[in-house]
Amino acid sequence: MKGLLTPNSVAIIGASNDETKLGGMLLKNMINAGFTGHLYPVNPKGGEIQGLKAYTSITEVPEPVDLAVISIKAAFVPDEMANLKKNGCHCATILTAGFKEDSPEGKILEQKLVAAAKEADVKFFGPNCFGNMNPWAGVNATFAHLLPRKGHISIFSQSGAVGSSIIDWAYFNKIGIANFVTFGNKADLDEADIIPEISEDPNTKVIGMYCEGISNGHRFVSAIENMPVDKPIVVYKSGRTQAGAAAASSHTGSLAGADAVNNVIFKKLNVYRASSLDDMFDVLNVFSGCDQMKKGGLGIITNAGGLGVMSADAAFDAKNVHAVKFSDETIAEIRTRVPTVAGVTNPIDIRGDAKPEYFKEVIDILSHDPEVGALVIMGSPLDTADLEAVAQSIVEIKDQIPVPFVVCFAGGHKCDKANSYLKEAGIPTYPTPDRAIHALDVLRTYTINKEKSHTPMSYPTATGGGREAAKKVLDKARAEGRD
Amino acid sequence: MKGLLTPNSVAIIGASNDETKLGGMLLKNMINAGFTGHLYPVNPKGGEIQGLKAYTSITEVPEPVDLAVISIKAAFVPDEMANLKKNGCHCATILTAGFKEDSPEGKILEQKLVAAAKEADVKFFGPNCFGNMNPWAGVNATFAHLLPRKGHISIFSQSGAVGSSIIDWAYFNKIGIANFVTFGNKADLDEADIIPEISEDPNTKVIGMYCEGISNGHRFVSAIENMPVDKPIVVYKSGRTQAGAAAASSHTGSLAGADAVNNVIFKKLNVYRASSLDDMFDVLNVFSGCDQMKKGGLGIITNAGGLGVMSADAAFDAKNVHAVKFSDETIAEIRTRVPTVAGVTNPIDIRGDAKPEYFKEVIDILSHDPEVGALVIMGSPLDTADLEAVAQSIVEIKDQIPVPFVVCFAGGHKCDKANSYLKEAGIPTYPTPDRAIHALDVLRTYTINKEKSHTPMSYPTATGGGREAAKKVLDKARAEGRD
Repeated sequence: MKGLLTPNSVAIIGASNDETKLGGMLLKNMINAGFTGHLYPVNPKGGEIQGLKAYTSITEVPEPVDLAVISIKAAFVPDEMANLKKNGCHCATILTAGFKEDSPEGKILEQKLVAAAKEADVKFFGPNCFGNMNPWAGVNATFAHLLPRKGHISIFSQSGAVGSSIIDWAYFNKIGIANFVTFGNKADLDEADIIPEISEDPNTKVIGMYCEGISNGHRFVSAIENMPVDKPIVVYKSGRTQAGAAAASSHTGSLAGADAVNNVIFKKLNVYRASSLDDMFDVLNVFSGCDQMKKGGLGIITNAGGLGVMSADAAFDAKNVHAVKFSDETIAEIRTRVPTVAGVTNPIDIRGDAKPEYFKEVIDILSHDPEVGALVIMGSPLDTADLEAVAQSIVEIKDQIPVPFVVCFAGGHKCDKANSYLKEAGIPTYPTPDRAIHALDVLRTYTINKEKSHTPMSYPTATGGGREAAKKVLDKARAEGRD
Repeated sequence: MKGLLTPNSVAIIGASNDETKLGGMLLKNMINAGFTGHLYPVNPKGGEIQGLKAYTSITEVPEPVDLAVISIKAAFVPDEMANLKKNGCHCATILTAGFKEDSPEGKILEQKLVAAAKEADVKFFGPNCFGNMNPWAGVNATFAHLLPRKGHISIFSQSGAVGSSIIDWAYFNKIGIANFVTFGNKADLDEADIIPEISEDPNTKVIGMYCEGISNGHRFVSAIENMPVDKPIVVYKSGRTQAGAAAASSHTGSLAGADAVNNVIFKKLNVYRASSLDDMFDVLNVFSGCDQMKKGGLGIITNAGGLGVMSADAAFDAKNVHAVKFSDETIAEIRTRVPTVAGVTNPIDIRGDAKPEYFKEVIDILSHDPEVGALVIMGSPLDTADLEAVAQSIVEIKDQIPVPFVVCFAGGHKCDKANSYLKEAGIPTYPTPDRAIHALDVLRTYTINKEKSHTPMSYPTATGGGREAAKKVLDKARAEGRD
């Protein structure tokens, strides 16, 4: 599978000089992504394409390529498999549309493609997919010209358009990604095939999935249960409701199934189910930027009493995190080191004119309090506060903070500048106290469930108690005609 | 009260050449706000301050000023009231801190101030407040150097820091405001005094309040019930939970009271209670940009099936809006005018490469469908879609769309540019389908409740059924020792 995710050589089949054409876009995107391996444009006309020597067929390329990115007319795609075989290429991502999703003829063509790929021993994403990306490998084999920075989130999207939204969001918010994968019609590979690979990817800390239906529930569950390296998974599965399911059916032909079943399965698998795109981004962000949260106590720091009140509400409502009641020693130490503090119960209010030094002092004290499992650092963009300087000083000390932490600078203009320093440094930022604390609650819940699942007494790993239970649910679902 | 909100002449008492000092900031902010009335810096040293002739006392100012903005040492504030009287000034906003919120001595000083102001017939905001703004009048008498654009939202904030967050958010998101008011310690004026004034302000379409506690519930209810012009009110009251209420008590000394009582009262008053800052912004945005929503049916347009699925889920979950099931005629018309449409059930999916013309055609058809009460226009930032052009064309036709509408371009970088055109034109934009539809649901709920309250049969206006019920709840609350 290496060829699919981290290829050293890539052929663009259907490459063009016209960058408004899909084959032209694909080549341009690969060049702009800074791919340092061998890049081979393929087009029957040959010659030179976008400054690179072009080949009339992949069979002419002088080495077996790791990945063929295909964007030619649908009718020609099945026959191209034999050419891949001649070249020695075993991996493809087929962006061409006009298959199952298009018409009955397309469905037949797709069957022909599957047979030809099998014959040629080619594993592929698609057809009708949006392509895939890996910024670490300089790969952008998609129709999206934006390539987010290198990072730790791997994304699977069933929908190319939602995938575009995610890429656009990641780019704008300086959120780094490890891999971006789309499956299109899933004629060959799907999530279950790629989860094991991605889990072993050293750049990936968390996996995010957008889907409207799980095509093969049993394989999906099995893939997650047997991940070689256990990593958090965040799923935003839309089509929750009857109306949404109907829309999903007309969009990707997905059968959404009874949604309650999905909830049971996700819970058993320790998969977080996001309730919206915002929620998906918020939670991916915390998993990407923070390590496990080993205690549920929050230390909350603010320069604004109002944000403190909001965070106290949110922490009270949370499932597995809470605002720590600080010991007299901790409070006394704060008073010594930050004499003008306005509120010394949690949240600690260091006042609207708090200098970066005061933030640093309190971060230091709270993060070493034995009750504290994570910090929430908040700020209001008062004119008396220099949030940019606060952000820079947080970045300076980030490696000395021994617990996970997130930042909430609530506002727009002045917060945006301050947040950009934090984002550059990979620190999760949130627009409101509620969202910051919710993300930490999910992080803590994941950690708790993970600890539980490694307790042999209650959940024996060998026989897989959780797995059995999930299987029962799945078997029932399948008995009812769902898959 | 005109002097407080739309003064023609303003004295800055405590003005300074040093812009890092609060009195310097205040004068600078008034100058930068483009105030075209008479501006009088007052400082015992006299001379010239920031290019303006300064007066040694407000008593020297050659005309009675509409508004005195006060930022001098706390000890001097009570005596200043007599000077205001001599000048003929009857309105002040007192930003000086060091009163009730500070110490027992401050509390005595505040009592002295109240007595002096009464004697001088001066109505005032504060002390210890953040000031107020009115972009329409070129007034920025606050400590915030950013002045949002002219618009239709009037904001009251109990907290200066949360007020800063709101201003910063409004400025960044090009959301226009009508007035921004803070009350500080509320030694004189509070929300109940200003609600009638603001409701009659022709620039104000919606009132937003951030508060931690209602200081006088009875007056507050009465003010809303008796608003001269009925306008929607959005309240974000934090301190919902036991923990939040404790934090609020230490922040502003507010007694949060039993939160369930607040919910009952807000519901009876047709006041929307926001659950977070995001929610407050989302709902203010829809009330600011849209008129009443007279039918609950939504027409949903998307260039991306995935966003359609999300919106179908959200519409299904909504209380008072739903996705319209389109008639055969409507669907046939769409097929005629937009032949390549991918999904013709609601949501209408006009495909990832939909040109602005296709958006326009479907907007035209759906907005004239008799079932449709509002439109949700959505787009994914696919490279094949030019969302900027789509946004520009929506702005062009906005006045021809006969129903309220909101836009959701889901993403970051490319959506941001497109959204900026919409924001400039006052069109509400949302980052996710869920948030767009939730905002319309609140708009529709407000309209329904308003219609109900004008039905004499079930809710006689003369005897005030809703009012009586709210009073009972309030009386009970007061009997229990809350206020």
